[in-house]
Amino acid sequence: MLPHPDPISGAAYSSVELMPGDRQVALLDQRALPLVERYEMLHRVEQVAEAIERLMVRGAPAIGIAAAYGVVLGAVAERGGAESFDRAMGVANERLRRTRPTAVNLAWSLERMARACREIAPFAPEDRVARLASEARAIHREDVEACRSIGTIGAARVPDGATVLTHCNAGALATGGYGTALGVVRAARASGVNVRVVACETRPVLQGARLTAWELLRDGFDVTLVTDSMVGQLMRRGGVDLVIVGADRIARSGDVANKIGTYGIACLAQTHGVPFYVAAPWSTVDLACLDGDTIPIERRSESEVLSFAGVRTTPEGVRADNPAFDVTPARLVRALFTERGEICAPCESALVALAC
Amino acid sequence: MLPHPDPISGAAYSSVELMPGDRQVALLDQRALPLVERYEMLHRVEQVAEAIERLMVRGAPAIGIAAAYGVVLGAVAERGGAESFDRAMGVANERLRRTRPTAVNLAWSLERMARACREIAPFAPEDRVARLASEARAIHREDVEACRSIGTIGAARVPDGATVLTHCNAGALATGGYGTALGVVRAARASGVNVRVVACETRPVLQGARLTAWELLRDGFDVTLVTDSMVGQLMRRGGVDLVIVGADRIARSGDVANKIGTYGIACLAQTHGVPFYVAAPWSTVDLACLDGDTIPIERRSESEVLSFAGVRTTPEGVRADNPAFDVTPARLVRALFTERGEICAPCESALVALAC
Repeated sequence: MLPHPDPISGAAYSSVELMPGDRQVALLDQRALPLVERYEMLHRVEQVAEAIERLMVRGAPAIGIAAAYGVVLGAVAERGGAESFDRAMGVANERLRRTRPTAVNLAWSLERMARACREIAPFAPEDRVARLASEARAIHREDVEACRSIGTIGAARVPDGATVLTHCNAGALATGGYGTALGVVRAARASGVNVRVVACETRPVLQGARLTAWELLRDGFDVTLVTDSMVGQLMRRGGVDLVIVGADRIARSGDVANKIGTYGIACLAQTHGVPFYVAAPWSTVDLACLDGDTIPIERRSESEVLSFAGVRTTPEGVRADNPAFDVTPARLVRALFTERGEICAPCESALVALAC
Repeated sequence: MLPHPDPISGAAYSSVELMPGDRQVALLDQRALPLVERYEMLHRVEQVAEAIERLMVRGAPAIGIAAAYGVVLGAVAERGGAESFDRAMGVANERLRRTRPTAVNLAWSLERMARACREIAPFAPEDRVARLASEARAIHREDVEACRSIGTIGAARVPDGATVLTHCNAGALATGGYGTALGVVRAARASGVNVRVVACETRPVLQGARLTAWELLRDGFDVTLVTDSMVGQLMRRGGVDLVIVGADRIARSGDVANKIGTYGIACLAQTHGVPFYVAAPWSTVDLACLDGDTIPIERRSESEVLSFAGVRTTPEGVRADNPAFDVTPARLVRALFTERGEICAPCESALVALAC
């Protein structure tokens, strides 16, 4: 059970929370879901970095929030003067930044924490911790607010009785709370619209089967699981009204990096005339990335593909490919939902305008 | 190890063989692959029927051959006169036919065995067994020959240095031996062409990860495994030169029923200008089926999607969809490779002409 008495997530569960007293981070171990709901208590930067690397916490916005809380733990451990603090915070920041390359929210959140660190380096240790905790909680709180705004904006595109297909988990578990793609689904229901969800299981790590199914069932939604290979025939039979996914990074061109498989779904949506939407907070937008080809794509261990749920399924000696993300070009995206508004093609001018 | 001294498969392994003496069927338990290579000895029709239902043997041509051998076991058990034999063979035939609905090779093979049964009903029991064993072995032998012809025909479409993407297992394990889609790959290599294979893992039953990887590695091919969700980005990056898959039934229109996920791959191939080929023996063609919409699609248990190898991967209470096959319309198929020749659009007239 969530150990935090008043979580910023606003729900009975949370991907990550900074505990009262600012000395420990409660992190829901998403690897154990859906069978076990277990919170780990983290006390050191290194624990947070490893939790991100090992996918105990995943989802671009949630990673950013976890990293911000990691910086707070770094400040707790550093009682020296301004120079020592600067150095220690630089090391902590760098360690956290290295954990995963694709989601830009991580770099965005760490940059914001680094700015706060620079301002408060001369303060007393306790004051530094309090100030950074406040900044990290603000990042968390703003993410939940962004998700709620995204939900309201996106819900306008969800017709009554719609079946929404989603990939991976872009829900409460992937964010500070409420979710992006699933935030749209939540907001649609809250506005009185009947909505059902088809969740792709999302090999190799099964975030759809394990996480999206878990949080939607828990909140009483009608959810059906399919393998990633079933999307084509499902669309052909008219079983999908719209697709909504999250994003790990959105380039200036409007190209979207998201969980591997997203691009194929976007192509199939195009072929079948199904609208394809992306829901993400503004922290996912990276105007410094001109287009999708410049987004770094994480390659993860072959073992994720060679085994299934911890069971080896493949012969010894076989190789596997395992890019964790793919890029969907802007032309396949009907609209981006962000808390700053809905963005349609041409994306670049709209994104640049909203950035100001 | 394969217990048969002189297998019709022509390889060191075989999906199914009738043992010398015609009293038992050696069946490779494909559920145990790739970790264990185990042959089960079957003695009764019911064992063969259950082996087909439980996917111990799968692949449209292999199912047809296993069922033909099942009829032989039925004749072994029936020592009565012509009328009793007719009745018993009718029951056996019907039991075997009910096992799986989509692959038409099963019905084709059983129809051929039923014709043989009718001719020999008045014979002595031993003669009936010998005659049916001979017919079943002919079905098996002809399937291997068909695969070799398909391979030669298809290999003409495989350029040197090509990367072939395949889905599910349309290999030696899915047929009497040699394989259809993988037969083309084998024939291409035999003709001196360099070829590498990308195998889709093929959820939910993982025939690609477990079976295609196993038989290609065993025969020394360069094979890389991907999740089904990776096909889109792989094609986008130019990593696939052509797609070759098998088929469970080909309608008069040229529409192709094959393992779930095939249709999505065919759409992605179309989008990316990658040629999409289907390799199948003539026994897979069903001219009585006018188009793909009339092909019965087997729906299998939700549990295949909800768990794996006894490991539950999804929360209690979630529903899943599990159609085992989908239909790829003829317009997405560049050519069908059969032992009677290569068939291009318009398929219907070509198929009808070859049927004569």
